Amino acid sequence: MILLDHDALEEIALGATVLGTGGGGDPTLGKLMAQRAVAKHGPVQLLSLSDVADDGWIIPTAMMGAPTVLVEKIPSGTEVLDAYRVLEQRLQCRAIATVSAEAGGVNSMIPMVAAATLNVPLVDADGMGRAFPEIQMVTPTLHGVSATPMAIADEKGNRVLLETPDNFWTERLARNVTVQMGCSACIALYAMQGRVAKKALVPGTISLARQIGQTLLTCRAQKRDPLTALVALLQGRLLCEGKITDVRRRTERGFARGEVDIVGTGADAGSHYRISFQNENLVFWHDGHPTVTVPDLITIVDDQTGLPVTTEALKYGLRVAVLGFPCHRQWRTAAGLKLVGPRYFGYEIDYVPLRSDE
Amino acid sequence: MILLDHDALEEIALGATVLGTGGGGDPTLGKLMAQRAVAKHGPVQLLSLSDVADDGWIIPTAMMGAPTVLVEKIPSGTEVLDAYRVLEQRLQCRAIATVSAEAGGVNSMIPMVAAATLNVPLVDADGMGRAFPEIQMVTPTLHGVSATPMAIADEKGNRVLLETPDNFWTERLARNVTVQMGCSACIALYAMQGRVAKKALVPGTISLARQIGQTLLTCRAQKRDPLTALVALLQGRLLCEGKITDVRRRTERGFARGEVDIVGTGADAGSHYRISFQNENLVFWHDGHPTVTVPDLITIVDDQTGLPVTTEALKYGLRVAVLGFPCHRQWRTAAGLKLVGPRYFGYEIDYVPLRSDE
Repeated sequence: MILLDHDALEEIALGATVLGTGGGGDPTLGKLMAQRAVAKHGPVQLLSLSDVADDGWIIPTAMMGAPTVLVEKIPSGTEVLDAYRVLEQRLQCRAIATVSAEAGGVNSMIPMVAAATLNVPLVDADGMGRAFPEIQMVTPTLHGVSATPMAIADEKGNRVLLETPDNFWTERLARNVTVQMGCSACIALYAMQGRVAKKALVPGTISLARQIGQTLLTCRAQKRDPLTALVALLQGRLLCEGKITDVRRRTERGFARGEVDIVGTGADAGSHYRISFQNENLVFWHDGHPTVTVPDLITIVDDQTGLPVTTEALKYGLRVAVLGFPCHRQWRTAAGLKLVGPRYFGYEIDYVPLRSDE
Repeated sequence: MILLDHDALEEIALGATVLGTGGGGDPTLGKLMAQRAVAKHGPVQLLSLSDVADDGWIIPTAMMGAPTVLVEKIPSGTEVLDAYRVLEQRLQCRAIATVSAEAGGVNSMIPMVAAATLNVPLVDADGMGRAFPEIQMVTPTLHGVSATPMAIADEKGNRVLLETPDNFWTERLARNVTVQMGCSACIALYAMQGRVAKKALVPGTISLARQIGQTLLTCRAQKRDPLTALVALLQGRLLCEGKITDVRRRTERGFARGEVDIVGTGADAGSHYRISFQNENLVFWHDGHPTVTVPDLITIVDDQTGLPVTTEALKYGLRVAVLGFPCHRQWRTAAGLKLVGPRYFGYEIDYVPLRSDE
């Protein structure tokens, strides 16, 4: 039985920031909440997806909102429990576990708060293998799993229960409710039974986040090159090294949108790079050409420490490396690309896979 | 036992338009829906508020949205039943009756659809004695009755259940959900038991609407002056007669807002009048001075027939009379004026009561 303690949460939060591709919300606050919950209630049991009972209900939990707001509007920690319970009550069930809808970013940690406090296991899986900005952008959507009934709770005592005809309507209504609640809220949604979860979720992503975190911490301790280690672990590619020369961001419809410009240094001197983001990094442009796109992962890291840099932390003068990692194979299908490919986000470009050997 | 049939609905819808003070939505579509429901399921029993059992639950039903949209986006008639049932399910109760939250406008008719179809009585009362644009603007708010749990349903199959810390949060969240649903939806809210309803509602408003409708129809048949008859029935005042010279309207945040300008004719020649509205008529200006304000009723009628003119039907050249009627006394309290007085709507003016003899 794997138990996640204070240090494990440290490693997972770090790895989740790499998987967050700039978005998903900085996990730091979520990590502190989860560590406090673990200190009070004991460590979180990590349950392998294959060990989930076929007829057991699992309830994913998460925060929803603009990452730029999350860092200033700190949840009390009870909202996620409220959302979980509202959904249990609606389903007239006792869920056997919670799970992350989004292993990248703060939503790697919010389910830990729920798991520790409610004393239920956390399933080692998520619905993305990364972070995405919208509710319907999860592998369960590809398997016909409904996001609703969905519960939304805020710190003011508002509770909203949604039932929608499809997951796009869920996103539309929930996004507006979240904006009204102050651009952040806690949610419980995509409740499903074990037999569905085994097909619909991406397995092993919490363990993967932990491995990433451990790799970065080991490299720091042993003074090894973290970029090479990360690229090897995730079978990715070093896209460029350079210096940030401009960042433009705006909070629109509850999202943090914008672009960051990077001028190449070292081997990349003379090249210009741009990354477009909507919470997450979506398109990597090399001298005006899109060379890596969503759903593959584009992560900006500190060029020395390999530590990930979130969208909120981007600033002029920062020396960074950009890494590309292949997404989970479910996203490389036609249905996957329709849901989260570059065209969905408004870019008239085709997806060019980082990995095409499958 | 009073039974409301096809003709009674005709009379009530007409009277409700007078009480709607320009807003509340044109009841015509609602009337057709209610008449169809009555034709299929039989007439609606009108239950006096004093006859409601103290421990019986009543569930008010309504439409929510911009009146300018209601006339183009016709409800299917099942949304209101869905909203009612979602609330019954949440409350784990079987309601004994429905009631109008707002006797003015289309919301005089929507509860008729629910009552006829579900075969429950309609209580002869409402929460306003007129029409108002926002959810918290009902007499139950003055009595501490919570608007939530509240159910919202649309024709696309979306269902939203809200629980909020106060009725202002209900308005805020429900308004946004309604806008996302296409600026109109059906709602069930302010569920309460008989003993509360007897204090919190305005009694007799459905019968009053019917009397108004009967008065107008009788005047037409007997070629009597409808303006004098209406003023006498409602103890109101003829504010002016004139011709509409300009109408400005805009749909903002789900509301129909704007102003109408009227130049006096006959005895009022030489005077200029303006009415500001937000769904309903809010302030009547005479040569730049506010002489009648919300919560008193300001209704524009055709100067010959006395038939009410809704905000959507206002247009250049129309010859009209403007009538003022005193609001229910609950609104003339300090708490009432705080909730629905001119200052709440952004006008830095004091309420001058049309009637001060109480």
